[in-house]
Amino acid sequence: MVVTVIGIGLIGGSMALALQEKGMATRVIGVDASTEHAEKALELGLVNEVTTLEKAVPQSDLIILAVPVGACLKLLPQVLLLITGKQVIMDVGSTKQGIAEVIADSPLRGRVVPTHPMWGTEFSGPEAAVHGAFANKATVICDKEQCDADALTLVEKVYNALGMHIVYMNAADHDVHVAYISHISHITSFALANTVLEKEREEDAIFELASGGFESTVRLAKSNPDMWVPIFRQNRENVLDVLNEHIAQLRKFKACLEKENYEYLQELIENANKIRKVLNRG
Amino acid sequence: MVVTVIGIGLIGGSMALALQEKGMATRVIGVDASTEHAEKALELGLVNEVTTLEKAVPQSDLIILAVPVGACLKLLPQVLLLITGKQVIMDVGSTKQGIAEVIADSPLRGRVVPTHPMWGTEFSGPEAAVHGAFANKATVICDKEQCDADALTLVEKVYNALGMHIVYMNAADHDVHVAYISHISHITSFALANTVLEKEREEDAIFELASGGFESTVRLAKSNPDMWVPIFRQNRENVLDVLNEHIAQLRKFKACLEKENYEYLQELIENANKIRKVLNRG
Repeated sequence: MVVTVIGIGLIGGSMALALQEKGMATRVIGVDASTEHAEKALELGLVNEVTTLEKAVPQSDLIILAVPVGACLKLLPQVLLLITGKQVIMDVGSTKQGIAEVIADSPLRGRVVPTHPMWGTEFSGPEAAVHGAFANKATVICDKEQCDADALTLVEKVYNALGMHIVYMNAADHDVHVAYISHISHITSFALANTVLEKEREEDAIFELASGGFESTVRLAKSNPDMWVPIFRQNRENVLDVLNEHIAQLRKFKACLEKENYEYLQELIENANKIRKVLNRG
Repeated sequence: MVVTVIGIGLIGGSMALALQEKGMATRVIGVDASTEHAEKALELGLVNEVTTLEKAVPQSDLIILAVPVGACLKLLPQVLLLITGKQVIMDVGSTKQGIAEVIADSPLRGRVVPTHPMWGTEFSGPEAAVHGAFANKATVICDKEQCDADALTLVEKVYNALGMHIVYMNAADHDVHVAYISHISHITSFALANTVLEKEREEDAIFELASGGFESTVRLAKSNPDMWVPIFRQNRENVLDVLNEHIAQLRKFKACLEKENYEYLQELIENANKIRKVLNRG
């Protein structure tokens, strides 16, 4: 089948590569707002050709939207106006409730399968695309009962081909869950980077000491604001809930130290250790 | 030379292995408060024999203290009473100001070289010891002007043999720096684990979604409270300073979301991105 990928960056580019390698796509057409990105994607062999949205969509069986979630909300209605009742649209955005709302009233709602593959790195752009991405990770398909059966089947085939484990949930639940297991980690990491950069502005020596623990905690702080500001904006209320809870948890550690209550500090850490069983499950 | 390692866990065990492999130790004697750990260390070949502190110290050229920092404060004066003016003591604890104070008045102060190798994992105990640890990481030697020249030289040789880059600083500066680049990462990670565990107690599905970003941020939350409570206790004031700053940074993100000030949110993330240059330096 012919696949159009809109937004040929980390996710779109890696998906384009994977679909070619798995024999799911006979041809991949790239669409990108940045001419520079489009040319780079072509040069890297992520896509077979690049063109405009208007030219790409009518030739395609599957249209994958892999742009930042803010842009996705604007583009999705445009793409819906360009398709027939046979083509399938799938988006891969990190928030799903806004997407659900923007397509709710379209007569072609059933052609859209909203998804969220749980894979990524802290890098972005076509150069960040890699071979073998997505395999053995989970992907979410949202509100499947609102998708046409053939559209759902096609998207399930795509994710099966990528080696992903499909989890089904509604858009609202998805957005709560990702606030916990993705969005808050990013905020924590950004804030931690700013804490260190702020206080140690004058000190150079410190960074010689930064070891593996520091690196793994602040790795996400390298993530691109053009991707993350729209995500936080879309998922504002859930993220605020989790952020408030996280600040409350940090205050417990603070209170332990202030009051020198080391028994409770021990308890807090023992409780945190239970995350082991969660991580080991994946 | 004959080396006694007191505390044959992750750090002590890995150091025992490395010193044997690098030909620095002809014999390693293990001392551990836990009989179980001592037997395991012997079984794993981390040490050649296990015995008591009183028997081990007199036979050794170098005594390495690799116990949690609280225990180290108690053991160090005992070891100082057991040595002659020729033996060398080196500790590897994560906080240094308390150590400096506890040895300050000893007539054999010069025999002690306080150090902190910046290597570790979230695991603990003799089974956590690994081959090839420490290489290409930084290690700190504190207050070197208070060490006897031959003692300092021996410890420098040990760290050079391990392939570590030596950074010299005083104990007070060390403790401020590690609050920023190690201790706060751990608190953040513990608090993040508790946030997720608290709110998602009833939900199982969420954990299927936990992806790489989450895992790297909460990895440190698996760390052992028996190691970390004493560290936070020793470095209480510095950790509180950094924790307050970190909570203030998180509040900036919270304010951006509450007020929907996405320009400032973009700025905060762009600033956090500067951590790249720090991480790439290591």
